[in-house]
Amino acid sequence: MLPPLAPQPAGAPRVALVGAGPGDPELLTLAALRALEAAEVVLHDRLVPAAILALAPQARLVAVGKQGFGPSVPQAEITRLLVAHARAGARVVRLKGGDPAIFGRLEDEVAALEAAGIAFCVIPGVTAASAAAAALGQGLTQRGRNTGLRIVTGHDMRGFADQDWRGLAAPGAVAAIYMARRAARFLQGRLLMHGAAPDTPVTLVENASLPGQRILPATLATLPEAAATATGPAVLLLGIAPRGAAAMLSDPPSELLEARP
Amino acid sequence: MLPPLAPQPAGAPRVALVGAGPGDPELLTLAALRALEAAEVVLHDRLVPAAILALAPQARLVAVGKQGFGPSVPQAEITRLLVAHARAGARVVRLKGGDPAIFGRLEDEVAALEAAGIAFCVIPGVTAASAAAAALGQGLTQRGRNTGLRIVTGHDMRGFADQDWRGLAAPGAVAAIYMARRAARFLQGRLLMHGAAPDTPVTLVENASLPGQRILPATLATLPEAAATATGPAVLLLGIAPRGAAAMLSDPPSELLEARP
Repeated sequence: MLPPLAPQPAGAPRVALVGAGPGDPELLTLAALRALEAAEVVLHDRLVPAAILALAPQARLVAVGKQGFGPSVPQAEITRLLVAHARAGARVVRLKGGDPAIFGRLEDEVAALEAAGIAFCVIPGVTAASAAAAALGQGLTQRGRNTGLRIVTGHDMRGFADQDWRGLAAPGAVAAIYMARRAARFLQGRLLMHGAAPDTPVTLVENASLPGQRILPATLATLPEAAATATGPAVLLLGIAPRGAAAMLSDPPSELLEARP
Repeated sequence: MLPPLAPQPAGAPRVALVGAGPGDPELLTLAALRALEAAEVVLHDRLVPAAILALAPQARLVAVGKQGFGPSVPQAEITRLLVAHARAGARVVRLKGGDPAIFGRLEDEVAALEAAGIAFCVIPGVTAASAAAAALGQGLTQRGRNTGLRIVTGHDMRGFADQDWRGLAAPGAVAAIYMARRAARFLQGRLLMHGAAPDTPVTLVENASLPGQRILPATLATLPEAAATATGPAVLLLGIAPRGAAAMLSDPPSELLEARP
């Protein structure tokens, strides 16, 4: 049962910038699902899985967006499409992996919409760090261990991303590092150089929340070997090891409680 | 349209540790909604809104959970209830505000479930930082500005939480600080003491995603005055100002695109 739709107000947004979550369609928000179902055009990041795009069968689907090291539609072309479809009167969803505010490169698109006078809304999503932690049954924060965490990227537009390495290398630091797979050796080098212990626990979560999800526990010393076995997008959880008794943890979040008949 | 339910596997989890998201029922995940609809017992944080609890009318609702400075059910009692209801054969949802991995105090409950041999799953949720950023139409990361962000708490079990103040005070640092309202003066003091500029932009987002949502732009110098006008839970976005042309941003994410008739 979905709660009733609010009546559409005058001046309702023409463009919804929507977080698709980590990949499992079950981890879409209700708002994201509604936006997809109502969309006439969906401009989507390449990494959004087909199972999510299938929720908007009525819409024209356009693959855009730069992810990691792959081929790209230039940002100027993405914003041009966004504005053009909205101006043509279409209900447009710009669908981004994870949460639009976290490595979603929101700023250019929002600036273009504002400049064109096109109303928009942002629908937040579940970010990959949360899905990766859920897969481990671990908190990203923990009382008595860390009262904060960092979310950083291993790779940005200019190449491997520079960070506050000393802070990340400090004992007890916890971070979720996005786009970490190809950056694994770089990350290892920077962290060791800044004093991190080689036995610092790290866990790579490949394809978090997707059917091909794999949890690769390692240490900073063995991180490049673990990363070399991965092929899909991976989040690196620095300072976090999987739980010992992981047998009690049920794997995919889509294996849900089901109401008794 | 919801995708079809997966068949319930043997040994399906008895307990789902579920993120309720920032408060707007539209920002629940599909998985969280299903878990609520199937629940027989829901042990929920006090801050989870009634509109979300109303999605589980068939369940026994038990308010537990410590949030901020309010009265508390001791953690030992929460874990006792969790294990007791699961052992009694109930389908139990432990519903936590936001994402369970971020300041959700997952560790004690997971350890108790493991010790009792009770299967569980974790369903991640939209964390408050993402909802607050969405309300501003801003990224928490931005190309050329910051390749990382911190998520920290203003207050923990022992009082105001200690942090890497120098890092947070550095020019260009971006952080989402949870439970920031009552800690505002403390945060201001620590950040200024560690060299942050008094004109550093900060934005308090009170009741992010809820009907009473308010965006309170300030600077580090004026933060305590802004915080004094708030009464609800607030996330502080350090280093982030609302966009200038906020008129184009439609307010609540529940004002969604609606399919044409």
